Amino acid sequence: MAERGFPKAEFERRVAALQARMAAAEHEALLLTTAADVFYVTGFLTRFWESPARPWYVIVPASGDPVAVIPAIGAELMGQCWIEDIRTWDAPCPEDDGVSLLADALTQLVSAGGKIGVPMGLETQLRAPLGDFERVSAMIVPRSFVDGTEVIQRVREVKSEAEVEKIRATCGVADRTFARAQEYAQQGVPLERVFRDFQRVLLEEGADWVSYTAGGAGQGGYGDVISPAGPRPLAAGDVLMLDTGAVRDGYFCDFDRNWAIGHASDGARRAYEVLYKATDHVLAHLRVGQKARDVHAMFVKSLGGSGANVGGGRLGHGLGITLTEWPSFTPMDQTELRAGMVLTLEPGVEIAPGVIQVHEENIVLRESGAELLSTRAAPELPVLR
Amino acid sequence: MAERGFPKAEFERRVAALQARMAAAEHEALLLTTAADVFYVTGFLTRFWESPARPWYVIVPASGDPVAVIPAIGAELMGQCWIEDIRTWDAPCPEDDGVSLLADALTQLVSAGGKIGVPMGLETQLRAPLGDFERVSAMIVPRSFVDGTEVIQRVREVKSEAEVEKIRATCGVADRTFARAQEYAQQGVPLERVFRDFQRVLLEEGADWVSYTAGGAGQGGYGDVISPAGPRPLAAGDVLMLDTGAVRDGYFCDFDRNWAIGHASDGARRAYEVLYKATDHVLAHLRVGQKARDVHAMFVKSLGGSGANVGGGRLGHGLGITLTEWPSFTPMDQTELRAGMVLTLEPGVEIAPGVIQVHEENIVLRESGAELLSTRAAPELPVLR
Repeated sequence: MAERGFPKAEFERRVAALQARMAAAEHEALLLTTAADVFYVTGFLTRFWESPARPWYVIVPASGDPVAVIPAIGAELMGQCWIEDIRTWDAPCPEDDGVSLLADALTQLVSAGGKIGVPMGLETQLRAPLGDFERVSAMIVPRSFVDGTEVIQRVREVKSEAEVEKIRATCGVADRTFARAQEYAQQGVPLERVFRDFQRVLLEEGADWVSYTAGGAGQGGYGDVISPAGPRPLAAGDVLMLDTGAVRDGYFCDFDRNWAIGHASDGARRAYEVLYKATDHVLAHLRVGQKARDVHAMFVKSLGGSGANVGGGRLGHGLGITLTEWPSFTPMDQTELRAGMVLTLEPGVEIAPGVIQVHEENIVLRESGAELLSTRAAPELPVLR
Repeated sequence: MAERGFPKAEFERRVAALQARMAAAEHEALLLTTAADVFYVTGFLTRFWESPARPWYVIVPASGDPVAVIPAIGAELMGQCWIEDIRTWDAPCPEDDGVSLLADALTQLVSAGGKIGVPMGLETQLRAPLGDFERVSAMIVPRSFVDGTEVIQRVREVKSEAEVEKIRATCGVADRTFARAQEYAQQGVPLERVFRDFQRVLLEEGADWVSYTAGGAGQGGYGDVISPAGPRPLAAGDVLMLDTGAVRDGYFCDFDRNWAIGHASDGARRAYEVLYKATDHVLAHLRVGQKARDVHAMFVKSLGGSGANVGGGRLGHGLGITLTEWPSFTPMDQTELRAGMVLTLEPGVEIAPGVIQVHEENIVLRESGAELLSTRAAPELPVLR
């Protein structure tokens, strides 16, 4: 397994890339609040984000190193990262939960009238109390918050080789786990036990933790891809799908696999072939310079040409520090595809009303085209006993 | 194991309680966006929240049932809940990601000039793009958003008996897992393998998933309680702590256990005794009508009376649908303790500079006092081989 973490130079490169975009946008600082954005800039990796009790702030100034304004409980771990300017308070504090500490830092780092980027666009969240954000906004006048979505997304979406290797390692964990499907998925086993054992094997195969599992099982296909597992046992003629966002060293994989239980119906086999062919088509034709919506169009062309009913929603997306990242392969997303983007190809078809099948692979986009990070699925629908 | 989910009457009770508080606050609607708040009101349970791509909105009107304004990908699962008014859009959509659908619903449900509560206070987050929230705010004028934190927190913090039983079941998962510690934690085993196996056993013992694990190990104590595990093997003289937020049927436990590896130092044993005694003290004296800060004071009195250095930060908190909930046992939190609150008692002491020990139990507060939900820790620091 690869070494843990990144050298300091990786973080310096990231901050320099952010600062170049900030300069072009005339933002004097970038305020980050989410687990993913904070990890990206600092290397601060903890599952403690699961607790919604405390906000965490990292400021990337126009030049120089980031400043962390964080709860005291994180000082020890942040101190092991490359960040040197760490300002803490004893959170949660009902009277002032880091508000004046953050306002002071922004006032110090940003000139009067200066703009501070905050991610506030599509696929972003402010992970801090809205009321505190409004209080800080008032305290830093004549400085003001503006939309910093473009700054962070255009930088984060292009992965370094070190990042690609992290994601490849996590994909390997899922590859090995899917290869052991017959161990934990057999006819007669309740789906909820399959889900539990699927997670157990992901841990055995090297996941640090398993942030996401989903799937479905039903005769000839399944109903949706986000429901938790129920007690129904796998039955002959079912198609089983398992999908995972396992995590290793802070990086996700996100791909699924399909199996027939006992035997496959003609409809299920045909759907598999159509989806496999559409994925091959996109793997062969994906290029730097295309837009996200072009990928959606490629999928629709291949699936439609095979006579399939294309599934709704997006047909793939970015991937990295979170289970899903922008862009989205939808008819509307105009994001330009660039070398170094890590993406999922996720075509789905409707076999009958309320019965679907979804495939997924993970790739990195190179100057020469798509390079698989997941081991390509079997070309025909595999059968489990 | 207990039955899954809740009867419809449980959700009707929750909505009626919210509506009573809304009426008192003169809010005509409550807008909810987080996984926890949406689950609380609708029963919508999925790990799909791990994807930050899409916002999800649920509106509790002044009277009548909640309205879900959600991405189409969630329609099938939300349709299995008790909610009947489900409005969907094809997300993520760069031009209008549910903004006009949400604004239309609010305009329809709230009179001109009416106030709409949104949680924006301590321990809350808006799980939606800030820019979209601002757009909706402008579209619904003369209606306006106001702080709805009190409405949701005062209702959610008092658990029904059905909720208490869910949390008790999850505590049982962790109890059984801690009882098997000698299987996965022995001298010479790297801490990262201990963490991995700890999660595996939690799944074996009935967790649906493991959203949080933390811990530490070091000579006589550990440095902090939020760091991920490293490769260092457990050594004789270490104190090992494992903490978990496992999840079963949407409800968390959150408690830890400590062990000495091989043998315990006098300092570690003494810290354990002092923490055990302080927990006993609070278990005996916790009463309805006290304030959160009174619990902090009880801990400080008992720990200080034993000559220990009290750990910083909060010494316990609420628990339920998220790993941590308000209130916080800090010197500042004036939240009144009420019957039905599920709480963690989490005292910590500093044994030497940078060396700590933390205990934790989960309880439900009854009219008669504290009732343990976790099985009380051993009275003396247990030793693993």
